[in-house]
Amino acid sequence: MIRVCFLGFGNVNYHLCKAFVGAKDVAVIQVYNRSKMDSVSFLKDIPTTTTLSELKEADVYIIGIPDNAIASFSEAIPVKNKLVIHTSGGVSITELSENNRRGVLWPLQTFSKSKDVDFKTIPLCLEAEAPTDLELLKRLGNSIAKTIVAISSKERATLHLSAVFVNNFVNHLYGVSETLLRKKNIDFNLLKPLILETATKIETLSPSEAQTGPAKRNDTKTIEKHLHLLEETPYQQLYKTLTQAIANEKL
Amino acid sequence: MIRVCFLGFGNVNYHLCKAFVGAKDVAVIQVYNRSKMDSVSFLKDIPTTTTLSELKEADVYIIGIPDNAIASFSEAIPVKNKLVIHTSGGVSITELSENNRRGVLWPLQTFSKSKDVDFKTIPLCLEAEAPTDLELLKRLGNSIAKTIVAISSKERATLHLSAVFVNNFVNHLYGVSETLLRKKNIDFNLLKPLILETATKIETLSPSEAQTGPAKRNDTKTIEKHLHLLEETPYQQLYKTLTQAIANEKL
Repeated sequence: MIRVCFLGFGNVNYHLCKAFVGAKDVAVIQVYNRSKMDSVSFLKDIPTTTTLSELKEADVYIIGIPDNAIASFSEAIPVKNKLVIHTSGGVSITELSENNRRGVLWPLQTFSKSKDVDFKTIPLCLEAEAPTDLELLKRLGNSIAKTIVAISSKERATLHLSAVFVNNFVNHLYGVSETLLRKKNIDFNLLKPLILETATKIETLSPSEAQTGPAKRNDTKTIEKHLHLLEETPYQQLYKTLTQAIANEKL
Repeated sequence: MIRVCFLGFGNVNYHLCKAFVGAKDVAVIQVYNRSKMDSVSFLKDIPTTTTLSELKEADVYIIGIPDNAIASFSEAIPVKNKLVIHTSGGVSITELSENNRRGVLWPLQTFSKSKDVDFKTIPLCLEAEAPTDLELLKRLGNSIAKTIVAISSKERATLHLSAVFVNNFVNHLYGVSETLLRKKNIDFNLLKPLILETATKIETLSPSEAQTGPAKRNDTKTIEKHLHLLEETPYQQLYKTLTQAIANEKL
């Protein structure tokens, strides 16, 4: 039985905790949060605390707080020589305090509290300084996920950067489209099948094979039409930058 | 029974033809293509020709050829006062020759010959000059699709532009991520659950509600890290442009 203590209860720890509560061979023994938590049904049998000095003995302490607070928080927790991990894509393992053995468990997914997630479909990127700790994290990861990979902090930095492109930046492009259509009273839902097909097409084709459109085929007439349509919007430069980027890929 | 004749046999007409061959109340009576077609099993009972002068009498002629060839081709076909439509998002109805009654049937989806499509999930954007022709196109569209909408050429231009953002530009961002990861020997498949969740999240949240990431929360430390990682790639300017665009959205 792996005893787990959660430190912080943001989106990632919320969903991780929910998954571990239902996992075999894992015992969630405590949840710490700075402020009192809203009542959460899956926590009904689990001790919670808002006081760091009350932390219980556990095998793994999982920090789930904003990136810029991880370093100082990991320094402040009153445990010694335990396995303390964070769950962030953007923070190196070395930002954790050396008071404890250090590790990372990063679920490569976007989370909202209101939307359930299925960890079976989410890759867990694991890192630990000690091989035995990595083994422990693998056992922990395997209890909820199907894909677990050992990823160094350097590799994770590139994965996190790539995730910004396919999640944050892509979502912004969805937003641009929605705004363009709303201004003309056209229903954004009409684009949803295309959005879904674009995301699933790369299961069978690489993105470079799947690339189509006016930029790819150097269709300057259509590009000019689009730039004209964008004249009174904030998106003309964005269109130009992306069109140029696609044209450059052909070289 | 609506008699349909296909003119050109690119990706869109290939899939439309396949769908109409299986549709009730529609008869595909002929397929014209400039060059001889490869044998296609669903055409085995359908007359084909490479000679425009052999065109048969039909109720609807469906042009599926490159955008820049539609105007001159529609002028060249030897029929008069028939309903002639194109299937392009980027071409106005007025580019069709006035020799015939004019219309548009644009399936709002991306097509590859090698990948089957389900028209039930694809919005068909219809336009015709004569109300009776629009009714005919609606009957035709309803024979294969669940979502049919009347869309003017002006509205279609904005939809087509928006489709470039959510399909061509988004796919390019997938490609950027794949390139970044390949250079570091990291498996692009790790990102696929995130890509799919990003695309499906907007079923329940609007893109602006779903927006997260360093640009959104003005996390300059992470943005600096990412720009540093991109220093020896062609993608630094693209990252800056998109980060700035997301930051501007907050204003």
